[in-house]
Amino acid sequence: MAATVFGAPATTNDTKAPPPRNFGIVMYDSYDLLDIAGSVEPLYLLSSRQRLNLSLIAETLDPVYMRPAPSENYTTGSHFQLSVNPTHTFADPPEDIDVLFVPGGGGERFGNITAAVDFIRATYPKVKHLITVCTGAGVAAQAGVLDGKRATTNKWAWKEITPTGRNVQWTSPARWVVDGNIWTASGVVAGVDLILEFIETFYGRELAHTIQGATEFKRTFDPCDDPFAAWHNVTPSGDCRLTPSIYGK
Amino acid sequence: MAATVFGAPATTNDTKAPPPRNFGIVMYDSYDLLDIAGSVEPLYLLSSRQRLNLSLIAETLDPVYMRPAPSENYTTGSHFQLSVNPTHTFADPPEDIDVLFVPGGGGERFGNITAAVDFIRATYPKVKHLITVCTGAGVAAQAGVLDGKRATTNKWAWKEITPTGRNVQWTSPARWVVDGNIWTASGVVAGVDLILEFIETFYGRELAHTIQGATEFKRTFDPCDDPFAAWHNVTPSGDCRLTPSIYGK
Repeated sequence: MAATVFGAPATTNDTKAPPPRNFGIVMYDSYDLLDIAGSVEPLYLLSSRQRLNLSLIAETLDPVYMRPAPSENYTTGSHFQLSVNPTHTFADPPEDIDVLFVPGGGGERFGNITAAVDFIRATYPKVKHLITVCTGAGVAAQAGVLDGKRATTNKWAWKEITPTGRNVQWTSPARWVVDGNIWTASGVVAGVDLILEFIETFYGRELAHTIQGATEFKRTFDPCDDPFAAWHNVTPSGDCRLTPSIYGK
Repeated sequence: MAATVFGAPATTNDTKAPPPRNFGIVMYDSYDLLDIAGSVEPLYLLSSRQRLNLSLIAETLDPVYMRPAPSENYTTGSHFQLSVNPTHTFADPPEDIDVLFVPGGGGERFGNITAAVDFIRATYPKVKHLITVCTGAGVAAQAGVLDGKRATTNKWAWKEITPTGRNVQWTSPARWVVDGNIWTASGVVAGVDLILEFIETFYGRELAHTIQGATEFKRTFDPCDDPFAAWHNVTPSGDCRLTPSIYGK
């Protein structure tokens, strides 16, 4: 057990580049809460040890909902809703975003995400890193910023999401993929593996290890360790083994 | 890999009891976002297949923050904040809560959680199930509702939390513990294992399996599979093997 949970590569991949400080999350109705929380939580723990700033950026400052209003009354009769408050708007975003974070969610399939897509297209050239989790890759793909890049997305939603980016080198199996400054995670919880790898890369292994222990997360260290590609019968494409070489492993 | 990720007990533990419908989350400033999201997300996916209702209950209807206001300006200079909107107050909660959910977070250590503790004490006798995740067990312990029960909490915070419930049978190692109608998870991500077990128990294995696949969560099926007890040097106590027998395994 210890070997798979606590195993780590033998070499460090800490970099000497100044670590990112300012994280901006692109919010839209029907975001996936766990996509967001899976990255916000480790970064929040990190923010007690490193200076980090978080912005939540949406079309307006109104609360953003897990589920778009028109479908709030499901066919099941459920009322299952949670809203988060943005801090900035797409029209007046924070300056100097280092890391633009795009969560997935139903919104990119049945909601209106035009404003979010436009914001990503306009903002990507100004940021140092782009992170997508789950079907957030489909939102980024619609903005065109994944064109020509290797990327991955939720294997459950693979057939629905990958056509949104016909010029993307979609990669599966892959728990996460890094291509240049674009980090894309597979479904939901794969985002926690991605963010711990991101933290290890830019803030060091010790902090990543401490945060893993605090959150009791059974981390995946190998980006090719993706059993959900087979689970969801995704046809293999691309090469997950290329991922670590991009950032110095 | 498949064996550990997808392995499941050979017998079903689905019950014939009517499944819980109404979930209420106890909110307080300095909640742990991932404790909440780790359960809300699987239940949200379930809510498209089953009628489920979610309430977020706090002292007031004002936004509730990840970090209490007085400490928002950390010593690191970080501004890392996220707020969620309650739907109900402790004074006017929803009727017929089936499942009361208590997340952890810094609040139970350095915030004012008196109102939350009082609400849990008054409400527990009316609900069908109590779930705590991470240091949420410390909040429930202060309400006295864990007295005489077996329970667990985050192994990282073990020495800080367990003294808040001197009459609790604290159990470690344990990924999660079930004692009667009280379900307690270890730290943060252990809550996802707990909620999938809860879903499997009350809504059936197929839905738990589907949700695991959608969230790409490498689930722990054995409540004794808790490497973080040793990671954090927690002295063994109680017996994690008692857990499954409580609800019919």
